[in-house]
Amino acid sequence: MMREFDFGRMTEMAPKAPLHLPAGVRAPSYGRYLEDFTDGAVFVHPRGMTLPRGLCQDFATTFMECNPLYLNEVYAQACGHPTTPVSPLMVLATVLSLGVQNDSEKAIAHLGYYDVHFPRPVYPGDTLRALTRVVRRHERGPGEPGIVAVRTIGLNQRDELVLQYDRKILVPRRGDAATASTPLAAEAQFPDAAMPLLLLPVPGALPAYATGRETFFEDFAPGQVILHANGRTVTDEHFAWTYRVGNTHPLHFDRMYSAARSGAMSGEPIVYGGLVFSWLAGLASRDTSENALWDLGYTEGYHTQPTAAGDTLYALSRVLDVAPAEDDLHAGIVTFQLIGLKNLNGAAALDRYGADLFLKENDKKKLGKDKAPEKVFEIERRLLLRRRPS
Amino acid sequence: MMREFDFGRMTEMAPKAPLHLPAGVRAPSYGRYLEDFTDGAVFVHPRGMTLPRGLCQDFATTFMECNPLYLNEVYAQACGHPTTPVSPLMVLATVLSLGVQNDSEKAIAHLGYYDVHFPRPVYPGDTLRALTRVVRRHERGPGEPGIVAVRTIGLNQRDELVLQYDRKILVPRRGDAATASTPLAAEAQFPDAAMPLLLLPVPGALPAYATGRETFFEDFAPGQVILHANGRTVTDEHFAWTYRVGNTHPLHFDRMYSAARSGAMSGEPIVYGGLVFSWLAGLASRDTSENALWDLGYTEGYHTQPTAAGDTLYALSRVLDVAPAEDDLHAGIVTFQLIGLKNLNGAAALDRYGADLFLKENDKKKLGKDKAPEKVFEIERRLLLRRRPS
Amino acid sequence: MMREFDFGRMTEMAPKAPLHLPAGVRAPSYGRYLEDFTDGAVFVHPRGMTLPRGLCQDFATTFMECNPLYLNEVYAQACGHPTTPVSPLMVLATVLSLGVQNDSEKAIAHLGYYDVHFPRPVYPGDTLRALTRVVRRHERGPGEPGIVAVRTIGLNQRDELVLQYDRKILVPRRGDAATASTPLAAEAQFPDAAMPLLLLPVPGALPAYATGRETFFEDFAPGQVILHANGRTVTDEHFAWTYRVGNTHPLHFDRMYSAARSGAMSGEPIVYGGLVFSWLAGLASRDTSENALWDLGYTEGYHTQPTAAGDTLYALSRVLDVAPAEDDLHAGIVTFQLIGLKNLNGAAALDRYGADLFLKENDKKKLGKDKAPEKVFEIERRLLLRRRPS
Repeated sequence: MMREFDFGRMTEMAPKAPLHLPAGVRAPSYGRYLEDFTDGAVFVHPRGMTLPRGLCQDFATTFMECNPLYLNEVYAQACGHPTTPVSPLMVLATVLSLGVQNDSEKAIAHLGYYDVHFPRPVYPGDTLRALTRVVRRHERGPGEPGIVAVRTIGLNQRDELVLQYDRKILVPRRGDAATASTPLAAEAQFPDAAMPLLLLPVPGALPAYATGRETFFEDFAPGQVILHANGRTVTDEHFAWTYRVGNTHPLHFDRMYSAARSGAMSGEPIVYGGLVFSWLAGLASRDTSENALWDLGYTEGYHTQPTAAGDTLYALSRVLDVAPAEDDLHAGIVTFQLIGLKNLNGAAALDRYGADLFLKENDKKKLGKDKAPEKVFEIERRLLLRRRPS
Repeated sequence: MMREFDFGRMTEMAPKAPLHLPAGVRAPSYGRYLEDFTDGAVFVHPRGMTLPRGLCQDFATTFMECNPLYLNEVYAQACGHPTTPVSPLMVLATVLSLGVQNDSEKAIAHLGYYDVHFPRPVYPGDTLRALTRVVRRHERGPGEPGIVAVRTIGLNQRDELVLQYDRKILVPRRGDAATASTPLAAEAQFPDAAMPLLLLPVPGALPAYATGRETFFEDFAPGQVILHANGRTVTDEHFAWTYRVGNTHPLHFDRMYSAARSGAMSGEPIVYGGLVFSWLAGLASRDTSENALWDLGYTEGYHTQPTAAGDTLYALSRVLDVAPAEDDLHAGIVTFQLIGLKNLNGAAALDRYGADLFLKENDKKKLGKDKAPEKVFEIERRLLLRRRPS
Repeated sequence: MMREFDFGRMTEMAPKAPLHLPAGVRAPSYGRYLEDFTDGAVFVHPRGMTLPRGLCQDFATTFMECNPLYLNEVYAQACGHPTTPVSPLMVLATVLSLGVQNDSEKAIAHLGYYDVHFPRPVYPGDTLRALTRVVRRHERGPGEPGIVAVRTIGLNQRDELVLQYDRKILVPRRGDAATASTPLAAEAQFPDAAMPLLLLPVPGALPAYATGRETFFEDFAPGQVILHANGRTVTDEHFAWTYRVGNTHPLHFDRMYSAARSGAMSGEPIVYGGLVFSWLAGLASRDTSENALWDLGYTEGYHTQPTAAGDTLYALSRVLDVAPAEDDLHAGIVTFQLIGLKNLNGAAALDRYGADLFLKENDKKKLGKDKAPEKVFEIERRLLLRRRPS
């Protein structure tokens, strides 16, 4: 119900208004220190976000998606969707971002993604919100930052689960810092699932023109390595994209903040990992996922080096496994290892590192191997790929 | 009614077409010189612009809005709106821009905003157009640029008033310049309001999760100063944003034009002030306006130094006044002074300037104070803020 | 029909999965070598793209369109359209891009556009796809790259023809290169038109406010030259725009690829020509096309020098011809020559080159003239322009 209100005319106030210095000064701070994470606590993240169609397409194209499912409404409808679904990478980048204010705006690093799945599609116009539960706070000794394991879920406007994942974060101690952190939300429901089922349309006959000829289920076999030819030079466009997907961490858009940090994350603003992952998946998409009907999940995902504006990203994929799916889907399951590189293309990286390129960076120390400074990301992805039309 | 036309085939013409040099050369020029402003004249601005939902969300997120009213359709509907309204800052940035071709494309500087108000919400899909009336041309002596006071109104597609503000502009004389300026529009209606009422929905029960815990009406008291932690490094994204909101002034996107100017506005293209204001309001939003039900108005707004790509913006706010509002709004009125800084954060600026930071830059000369080179903006804003849910 | 599926839990696989080096390595490559073009072959381009309203407006404003037909829904409806049509330049930029993967991802250069026409409007929400037929492969001797002439058509979701053009491309030979190129699509229909009719609404009474006063049909006469005042400095925004319109050529977004090339296209990524043309048309639009009811066609279009981020584009127009149109359109036909410049404005270019500026660059050698290094583009455009309202 609209009503008319009369608030009167605004007049200048500043010259005669009070000013309480220094007693009245507040410096609100977001994120949490290690001490603020309690096992089992639930954070209800603020804001939420409606995903307009234009934004969803901007995301799909800026991050170089080649699967027509996310670009072409006619194709998406032939797949049984009411319209183009929102790309799972955008759902992940957004839901994770909505939790940053509570989970990681004080974090030192995002350590890894595990058990990421998308139990039902999100469509343009849907509104996402996010909740996080602290799974376990792991102390690493006095004065040392600790590791916090959390589970985050994304819900749509009908409170249906659209995303669930686990994540580990490196978090500093409060120590002497007097800054107050955001207080805990009230007790909240946390409707996660032990193992969510996937709600998906059964595809009908798909247009033949829409995809390439070498990216059907039958084209992949375990042990294959696919070098994705094109790279993408990242520009400072990532400053704005950070907030466009709801991420509030200043490390990604405040150059003075970045310059004042020390260590690997100092210098230029670091690209938000959700964007790096999205570009890498996009670079791989023409050769691996353009016939994907769905992203069944990701696990063991690690951002192993930072990426900044000016870096050129390249990707390569390894086929880990192939498996059949239910007959009426006319599809099969392919699991890929996706590797991301900066300033070195896949062919050159394979020349330089050979089989070591596919070792997890975290495992290299115990194997007596050096980390690859050009390797920025690694993850395992399970995709549902169309079979070649007969 | 669609009809078929046959325009025949196009054939190459250039080699045999006439070319009248120099007699046939025209160099159309936009904006007006001081002599072209007549008290009482009305300019009907061309083009107008429909605001698609995707653009409205891009604006809200790029400029770092944290009020879910502009991001989350479920929340906006709980507030009584049919969908997310367009952010008042976007309405202001757009309507002002639509007037640039007539009002200020030849201006030297925008001097100030006064009595800005938003008498009814704008929604995605609405079409805005703008008119300006010359309030008064103030001559400052022969050869000197003059000051023009104008009133601009924004109308939606139903010719309802959605924005009204007064503005002062520093405008050069035509002098000897032979360039023709845009001729006056025919006489036009100018449906401004002496003191517009505000048409607003009465909010229902709002979701508790959507905002932080320290930004309700009760959290503010006169004299407080709030330092907004995060900054935003502006990139050359602003070149494109200038036209995305309808602004045609080359100062904001033509580096050769900027390099050829002299004085404070020479060098790199200057960020359009409407964008600077929007970023500063966004930086302040998590701490001040995330629970705002409406922006009741702005006044005494001054862009005190130019901002260019590469500058990092910071903001701080001072609470000037708090006042009650009608009971059924479950809200109160808080007036803030918003200060914008470049390349210096709020805490450092407060250390350096103390209480002087809150003096208007224009008043400093008469007070025997120096201007602060890092201070880019100051304005007074009156917001309707939700009371804390009981 | 949505159904629930149980794909089970994803587990880590990489450490124990096979890895076939080097036998299992694939490096998919896109585009075609000269030998792969057979006269009469039809390529059915993959993906297609739905054009959301937000993207269409982003395109119109980023590329500086001043014709309210593409910005203002109220105006577009007064012109008889159901809503704002998609700008013809966006249709061209998109359809050409969709063909790059087949036509030109290995090309050395785009040589020219001919007989471009837009037989019916495209509206936001429409889905475009593209097909190309090889008109003629022209060999230029052993070891030399050849010239391929192709015709491309764009179809909407109802398979109606919305764009048709011819194009010439400079393509290298495969030679010893062992890389496989994309195989030919199966035989396909190619519903082009010898001379398409144009389906257009008959405009009603148009709002007077929406455009300037000097850009009606009556304002143009053959031989006139119009210098468009404002320039636009291109930023690395073009990296993302390349994919936003569906173009997959790495020359436009992969700095390592660009740096490794030799010749005129080496160095920084080159701006996709469809974007350069769009900016130039936008820069010209306030003075030439803001009253256009339709773009009747383009021909003899040449990108004569590359443009990169940091370059400032300027445009000038020459009136080649004026002609009447059917009475009930209240419009006439004006043919313009559009010239694009980098880092030199129209007035300075006219001073420097005089009448030679309007010679086609390809014709200069035989005329004993030097090319103009600042001239980046030239084309002839035929526009249907409103007559001045009486």
